[in-house]
Amino acid sequence: MREVNIALIGLGTVGSGVYKTICLQKQRVEHKEGISLNLKKVLALEYAIDIPDSLKATDFYADIVSDKSIDIVIELIGGISPAKEFILAALGAGKTVVTANKDLLAQHWPELNAAAKASGAGLYFEASVGGGIPIIRTIWESLQANEITSMMGIINGTTNYILTKMAEEKLSYEEVLAQAQAQGLAEANPKSDVEGYDAMYKLSILSSLAFHARVPVEYIYREGITGITLEDIKYGQELGYTLKLLAISKREGNTVQARVHPTMIPNTHPLASIRGAFNAIYLHGNIVDDIMLYGRGAGDMPTASAVMSDVIYAANQASHKYTTFYNEKDASSEMTFEKNWESAFFLRLIVLDAPNVLAKIAGIFGSHGVSLASVMQKEHGSESVPLVLITHKAKELSVKQALGELSKIKEVTSVANAIRVES
Amino acid sequence: MREVNIALIGLGTVGSGVYKTICLQKQRVEHKEGISLNLKKVLALEYAIDIPDSLKATDFYADIVSDKSIDIVIELIGGISPAKEFILAALGAGKTVVTANKDLLAQHWPELNAAAKASGAGLYFEASVGGGIPIIRTIWESLQANEITSMMGIINGTTNYILTKMAEEKLSYEEVLAQAQAQGLAEANPKSDVEGYDAMYKLSILSSLAFHARVPVEYIYREGITGITLEDIKYGQELGYTLKLLAISKREGNTVQARVHPTMIPNTHPLASIRGAFNAIYLHGNIVDDIMLYGRGAGDMPTASAVMSDVIYAANQASHKYTTFYNEKDASSEMTFEKNWESAFFLRLIVLDAPNVLAKIAGIFGSHGVSLASVMQKEHGSESVPLVLITHKAKELSVKQALGELSKIKEVTSVANAIRVES
Repeated sequence: MREVNIALIGLGTVGSGVYKTICLQKQRVEHKEGISLNLKKVLALEYAIDIPDSLKATDFYADIVSDKSIDIVIELIGGISPAKEFILAALGAGKTVVTANKDLLAQHWPELNAAAKASGAGLYFEASVGGGIPIIRTIWESLQANEITSMMGIINGTTNYILTKMAEEKLSYEEVLAQAQAQGLAEANPKSDVEGYDAMYKLSILSSLAFHARVPVEYIYREGITGITLEDIKYGQELGYTLKLLAISKREGNTVQARVHPTMIPNTHPLASIRGAFNAIYLHGNIVDDIMLYGRGAGDMPTASAVMSDVIYAANQASHKYTTFYNEKDASSEMTFEKNWESAFFLRLIVLDAPNVLAKIAGIFGSHGVSLASVMQKEHGSESVPLVLITHKAKELSVKQALGELSKIKEVTSVANAIRVES
Repeated sequence: MREVNIALIGLGTVGSGVYKTICLQKQRVEHKEGISLNLKKVLALEYAIDIPDSLKATDFYADIVSDKSIDIVIELIGGISPAKEFILAALGAGKTVVTANKDLLAQHWPELNAAAKASGAGLYFEASVGGGIPIIRTIWESLQANEITSMMGIINGTTNYILTKMAEEKLSYEEVLAQAQAQGLAEANPKSDVEGYDAMYKLSILSSLAFHARVPVEYIYREGITGITLEDIKYGQELGYTLKLLAISKREGNTVQARVHPTMIPNTHPLASIRGAFNAIYLHGNIVDDIMLYGRGAGDMPTASAVMSDVIYAANQASHKYTTFYNEKDASSEMTFEKNWESAFFLRLIVLDAPNVLAKIAGIFGSHGVSLASVMQKEHGSESVPLVLITHKAKELSVKQALGELSKIKEVTSVANAIRVES
């Protein structure tokens, strides 16, 4: 039986899951794959789980990089430094690297890629996006004959948990966030999740891979869920929509749009049924048509499943594949990143309950080339009442200009929210 | 650039899709994969699409098996013979075979596998189940570290189309089937789909692969949708359930249960939202937890996407992986195939509208160890009224015995339907 010698760096949630998985599934992998997973070294700042002393490394370079018998390094310490230095050193020594480090990949992929290519080592990162969902391998090894033209994903579990709970239990954002924090489902400082940064990094990786063109985070529009109210969700439901934080990217020719924002989708859309902390990625390829992958987007064991799938996959490869980017050096030289994309809008306005208000509002939208698909006004009588509009597809800037103009007329008390709609 | 020489056998729906995909995507594959897809020969009984004469083969053995330059044979003629002879000859000549032939695989997999192993050729069959959905590769190359313990799939598009249409438009089975036949979505003789044979073959392949144990079709319980009425669907909806034809298999130790039958699932289950002709497979692995893949389960281009993913994948492998079955020779020697599994039941009875009827019915269920989870009786006044029951989980045989006894008492006019419930 072929032995694969592994070093594991980092013993946090995912690292511990990987350690447990190797112990639990070693025999099964030997039977199925004919590979003996031999964990040779573990390096961590703290050993929160029980690890034999003989496995504990003290110095990455002396104990791991210099150990010629080690084939694969699993990097799970996260962050940029020293993860980047460690990965470059491991790749430089010809060791295949398996990582879950989305921040690092989103920001330094070409450099890591070049180091892997130079030494012939593999660079695998299934666990960087979507936890246990095999979305990277699917793009890489199942949709090779496709041109992927669009992608919509629920790729942050915390925000999907919050939005699901708000919708199903009719609770406010603040209440659910506090509950989620108490349960450890949201961090004390939830910014990375609720403001869409986490989804943005993941979208950068997925889009770059799917489009074979780097989509750096600085070209991704980002808007979180902190401005979402229960009213928005309820009015959306009445109109047949579910509110999700979606990571969206589309490619047409060499033009790419990439954006993370709250989005209304029809209840009949498969993404609408993704509840709680689950993740799902919905893709369109020119040959395969629509496809969706669903699963746990985080957690020790689901993410360990993805890490170990990379380890076993890499161990079976005689040589490794590398992503090729059209815009390797300068992201914007070969690609155009569209900011003025088209989408429909769900608009919640507070307006005076007076004759001709709707006509005036529709007129202003019309003057900006924005037409209305549906209108809902349920309350009457009080001075100011909510008016909910769904527009047809329109240019982003046109809708913003129309809303700017509307906010100045006396009939509109406020533009309470503007949420994009995808179908 | 590395050339991969391909022969394509069969030019029906999927074969034509493969031909088109090679023409359309050749350049893209060259750029992304560094592989030049070179279609050398096409063999078909009829050439319904325009193919250069130089590509047309007349004899499989002389033109394809004997052509040493051909690396990969794509078999899309379907059926057992001559597909089996062709595949064995190609494998014997060391040529990798890519096939969509679910009947052949379900019935002769060990023999094909042995031929592939003997010559070192690859045997790939992503397109045999789930059209464009990469479920085979996911089990094979993404869930390697998992023990897959259960699987539920919507793997027949025709029946899912029929059930969706009945539920959404409140039409009878007969009406929708006729519509589907008129539109070419169901065959003139729909037996293979509506009686669950197609799903049974696919479940055999998926379960065998997932459990690493052959699950031959003769051990799969099969029940189609011909007995489903709009009443069943409507009562299910009132109780929060969606009716689907599910292919289900579960493994516990060396005991496997495998069954295809109409199933009520909670509306909140991800499979409940799979509409129309789409397919989805929902898996549970001991490490990854729950995972679902969704996409088009049929059609020329989606299935071609799966075929071409196998061709490109195979072309990138220095050596090929083979499935190993615990019960290679005699399926039942190492495995137990459970017929008396546990599941909840949705029961629609027609009963006399008289006092104590429910108590008597509950008593009979109780005497067989079957307890009731919920009861719905909406109509009153006429002599016979519908009574809908949901049981707790119970043994298959216990429920059948209880129903047999019930059908004999005067208070029960008839057992209109008994549909299993999964959650």
